[in-house]
Amino acid sequence: MANETGQNISDIGRNGLIQEISKSSAFRTEKVTRGIGDDAAVISTSDTEYSLITSETFVEGVEFDLTFMPFHQIGAKVISAAVSDIYAMNGTPVAVLVNLAIPNRVTVDMVQELYKGIGMACSDYECQLSGGDLTGSHNALVISVTAFGEVGKNNIVYNKGASEVDAICVTGDLGSALAGLKILLREKKHWQESDDPVMQPDLTPWDYVVKKQLVPVARKDIIGKFSELNIKPAAMIDISQGLLPDLQRLMKESEKGAYIYQSAIPIDLQTRDVANEMKEDVDKYAMFGGEDFELLFTAPQKMVDKLTDSFKDITIIGKVTDKSGITEMQSAEGDVITFEH
Amino acid sequence: MANETGQNISDIGRNGLIQEISKSSAFRTEKVTRGIGDDAAVISTSDTEYSLITSETFVEGVEFDLTFMPFHQIGAKVISAAVSDIYAMNGTPVAVLVNLAIPNRVTVDMVQELYKGIGMACSDYECQLSGGDLTGSHNALVISVTAFGEVGKNNIVYNKGASEVDAICVTGDLGSALAGLKILLREKKHWQESDDPVMQPDLTPWDYVVKKQLVPVARKDIIGKFSELNIKPAAMIDISQGLLPDLQRLMKESEKGAYIYQSAIPIDLQTRDVANEMKEDVDKYAMFGGEDFELLFTAPQKMVDKLTDSFKDITIIGKVTDKSGITEMQSAEGDVITFEH
Repeated sequence: MANETGQNISDIGRNGLIQEISKSSAFRTEKVTRGIGDDAAVISTSDTEYSLITSETFVEGVEFDLTFMPFHQIGAKVISAAVSDIYAMNGTPVAVLVNLAIPNRVTVDMVQELYKGIGMACSDYECQLSGGDLTGSHNALVISVTAFGEVGKNNIVYNKGASEVDAICVTGDLGSALAGLKILLREKKHWQESDDPVMQPDLTPWDYVVKKQLVPVARKDIIGKFSELNIKPAAMIDISQGLLPDLQRLMKESEKGAYIYQSAIPIDLQTRDVANEMKEDVDKYAMFGGEDFELLFTAPQKMVDKLTDSFKDITIIGKVTDKSGITEMQSAEGDVITFEH
Repeated sequence: MANETGQNISDIGRNGLIQEISKSSAFRTEKVTRGIGDDAAVISTSDTEYSLITSETFVEGVEFDLTFMPFHQIGAKVISAAVSDIYAMNGTPVAVLVNLAIPNRVTVDMVQELYKGIGMACSDYECQLSGGDLTGSHNALVISVTAFGEVGKNNIVYNKGASEVDAICVTGDLGSALAGLKILLREKKHWQESDDPVMQPDLTPWDYVVKKQLVPVARKDIIGKFSELNIKPAAMIDISQGLLPDLQRLMKESEKGAYIYQSAIPIDLQTRDVANEMKEDVDKYAMFGGEDFELLFTAPQKMVDKLTDSFKDITIIGKVTDKSGITEMQSAEGDVITFEH
């Protein structure tokens, strides 16, 4: 058995571990146009099209909590998270595979509910549930989703490719999924401390942020808009880790820097209300709150103007700079905070 | 939250659950040539080629045991298991994605060892590690592997397609992976009951079966042979659940029956020795022992003769019949046991 006194993963972090892993496998094939390091792997399967594959694992107690997440919503969410990576490459999802590791306490009804959500999400994203695997688990329910998609070779957008003429844009609003989670965790705590086991919290004032946490929607609509307007962003990523880490990844891959305006970052009023109630900084929700599944992209200003003329759900938050490795953020007061990658 | 008093999954079984799941998702796309129900999903990505995708999940304490399986061997085994499904469609693996859910006790060294095995297996099978996902886990280490492969549209082999002129063939020998597991579990028990924590069991007499359990090899060689001899089996599956369940699946998909000779089933001498030591029936190891990752296929007798002339590691175990749903097995004594699908 391996030495148990080795370095902890927390010492080198998730990115450090990915770097270690990238070194480990030497075999390369020309068919794989892009391997580790983008939203999806890119494989050349015809003269005109790339195939895209991406896979994610969701662990009970880590990515989802059965005490406040109904099975059908978990099913829909894991599909949205997986296809979001296909959209982030400007691609179209075609098929998904779903693997489950199921503990004994999970019944047939629960699995059916889960697949109801999976089926509904597959219909929404027009991709076919095409297989997967079933096994047992001693403790947590574990769900792995693989999404397969396609994109024209002329239409693919990578994390890399941002240039200094580009504006930096995001879809939707940021931090709301985290705000929803904060509310759900607070209500769970109330429920656990209460004597009334059937207490139903009133979540109406938080309907928007709770929905963003429980059933986020991948941005199929914006990919459709790009296609309709014949627009192709220079670089793109989906916001799954949080605006700052995902922006830094985009800039690192592009070997550029970013200058963003804090006051321009789109934040919903309900997200602000949650942060106020929690006595927390709403800008941190927007910068570091993950799971928004919005798209972050860069494109020349002219292209962005064309886009925002016909599509309202896009915000320009800054511009690409030549300061490779540096993200600068100008606060509302005018001072500039610098983050190094 | 869903009702916890519902039907248990054990009541309807794995196949029952897969049937329930198949009903749940209505969306279909023409691009998916074959979805749920074969070794891999089949997607039409060019005029001449299909893309194949398959995904499997391996849970610590269910599919693997860290007390007697070194990390690098686990890494190699999960890749073999995944690409085996690509070979079972007569395809060639191109890329794999590996997702890990990692508990705190797993160190960087251990993850590196795991990826060493993954990297070596990827080199052996000439496929590129192209991405994946990393997350945390409260208890078990969970590994999900997705394999992506390709096959010419004229060369694809499905579970369905067996016809009454076909012989039934298997590669290698059966039941040895289960025999290896029995030995490893016995030695684990000895070790747990012993006062000597560094006791090293002598596994030399069981080297073959232990190796079949720890580092099974997917049958890339036979797929190469099919191609070299310009032979295409009528129907094929990899033996992951066990000879009988996998043969029944092949026959069910083909709407045929099988007549097999028990005395023809290839069983290694070491596997027989293990069954003797355990006072168990070695035929049950061969019929129901999973994880052999050998290929089970049907082909016309003439084709099989051509194959066995130049490739020794293939055994004819019986023939396809018109008795759809029925597997008959003739024992060494001449009596016939019937299994209904």
